[in-house]
Amino acid sequence: MFAVTKKMMYAGKMVRGYSVVDSYQLLKGQELTEEEAFLVCALGWCTEWFQAFILAHDDIMDGSHTRRGQPCWFRLPEVGVVAINDGVLLRNHVHRILKKHFQGKAYYVHLVDLFNETEFQTISGQMIDTIARLAGQKDLSKYSMSLNRKIVQYKGSYYSCYLPIACALLMFGENLEDHVQVKDILVELGMYYQIQNDYLDTFGDPNVFGKTGTDIEECKCSWLIAKALELSNEEQKKILSENYGKNDPAKVAKVKEVYHALDLKSAYEDYETNLYEKSMKAIKALPSITVQAVLKSCLEKMYEGHK
Amino acid sequence: MFAVTKKMMYAGKMVRGYSVVDSYQLLKGQELTEEEAFLVCALGWCTEWFQAFILAHDDIMDGSHTRRGQPCWFRLPEVGVVAINDGVLLRNHVHRILKKHFQGKAYYVHLVDLFNETEFQTISGQMIDTIARLAGQKDLSKYSMSLNRKIVQYKGSYYSCYLPIACALLMFGENLEDHVQVKDILVELGMYYQIQNDYLDTFGDPNVFGKTGTDIEECKCSWLIAKALELSNEEQKKILSENYGKNDPAKVAKVKEVYHALDLKSAYEDYETNLYEKSMKAIKALPSITVQAVLKSCLEKMYEGHK
Repeated sequence: MFAVTKKMMYAGKMVRGYSVVDSYQLLKGQELTEEEAFLVCALGWCTEWFQAFILAHDDIMDGSHTRRGQPCWFRLPEVGVVAINDGVLLRNHVHRILKKHFQGKAYYVHLVDLFNETEFQTISGQMIDTIARLAGQKDLSKYSMSLNRKIVQYKGSYYSCYLPIACALLMFGENLEDHVQVKDILVELGMYYQIQNDYLDTFGDPNVFGKTGTDIEECKCSWLIAKALELSNEEQKKILSENYGKNDPAKVAKVKEVYHALDLKSAYEDYETNLYEKSMKAIKALPSITVQAVLKSCLEKMYEGHK
Repeated sequence: MFAVTKKMMYAGKMVRGYSVVDSYQLLKGQELTEEEAFLVCALGWCTEWFQAFILAHDDIMDGSHTRRGQPCWFRLPEVGVVAINDGVLLRNHVHRILKKHFQGKAYYVHLVDLFNETEFQTISGQMIDTIARLAGQKDLSKYSMSLNRKIVQYKGSYYSCYLPIACALLMFGENLEDHVQVKDILVELGMYYQIQNDYLDTFGDPNVFGKTGTDIEECKCSWLIAKALELSNEEQKKILSENYGKNDPAKVAKVKEVYHALDLKSAYEDYETNLYEKSMKAIKALPSITVQAVLKSCLEKMYEGHK
């Protein structure tokens, strides 16, 4: 599925779009007709336009400078904040593609509902993240594993991991209400992707990760700080509280010292191994062998090079 | 329908929302059931949330300071550009209301399509306005009546004037494709609302209009400049070109001198009178007496105090 390597993500390899196509092919189990191939690609593009909308807005809200090695769209002098409108335009294109190519299909309304629901989840995640950051900057003890889970679940997991497979299932004629376990498994895997990101932000090699992490400076409610607060004693909590979220290399170093003392590397590796085993077990319990194949493919791609 | 007086608009009187309710009542012609009353109010709220989304984003893009006498949402210190996300959240609520209360109705998918189509029209209008402004700032001769029509049509007319009545028609079980003339009439009336706004920006009494106009300073492709360029001779065109779009009272005064010399007041009054007559004629030609009543009500409310 997505995120074969970090580098692929940063080059914009359209992993969500391909995920729709790959999943549908696995579900079908035989060569697609020309019409099917066209439609499944159209759906793949919908997931890509959706992400483009999210990223265009996120870059403005985060005050980012570059995206995939190029200036962010709103940073272009002739664009500016009108990029807000352009983001909505990208989002609206999802509906236009759906209406143009899927209107009349029995699953049309379910596709439209799916994208609207996914939008709600994603922007709710953004809102939770914003509110959490405001609270955490004042009082770090507001950060917790459950808050981190909520943020990564809503902000990225539904649209990155569940949406593409749900699109493929709908086009294959499935009722999404019959696949609640599929959703649960994919949402967990999507969270793993973000948590891996949080981990690499501090512990990753910047040459491989593609950027120097700034989660500590930016006071992010990342998996690492949430786990550190969970495992630390009072003295360590005090150090974290005094040094987290400050744009000062000495303070960042102190936070990292606590991270190392708590052996967060091992805690992360445990999480990673447990999630793989838990997910594989849940996948094998699914009633459909074909759906199992789709999710196994996702799982293996995500863990490629990690297991 | 909407815009009974400027003051009402600025106080946020929910004219679009009430327009859905009033129109449905006229269509029904007898007392609504409790369920109908609830549903039609829910639809009214959808038009209001939709507008809130458009205004929240517009205020950021325009760098506005106040809206209806209060600071714009993004101007609050704890909000800032995250208001972009809040805007999308308001927009998404339309879908949530529709899904919660209309899923299962035969016209559900048409309501969803209508709001998506209206979004596309509105943000396309914003885009045309932005692109036009960039061109007009360099070369005023790019402004024309047809460009002004395109901007006012897409940016405001569909969502302000057509959307509420289309909602009522759908809930009444009508097929919107059978009401193309209704759309055409309402879009013309919606443009009148904006053109009236353009006119009052320069010729209105600030005490009645609620604000001091700045269209000339901001180089807006308003009805007045478009009409002025149409009617002016070479010398007047030169004056307009040299003085329009500058934040300088002396230059603004020179533009206004040309407006008066061209008697734009009369040109506007002619437009207003012609539109009323043309609209009334088109309304009377509609096959359904009930639909005629809905549109006559809109027309009369818009012209209240002007005829």
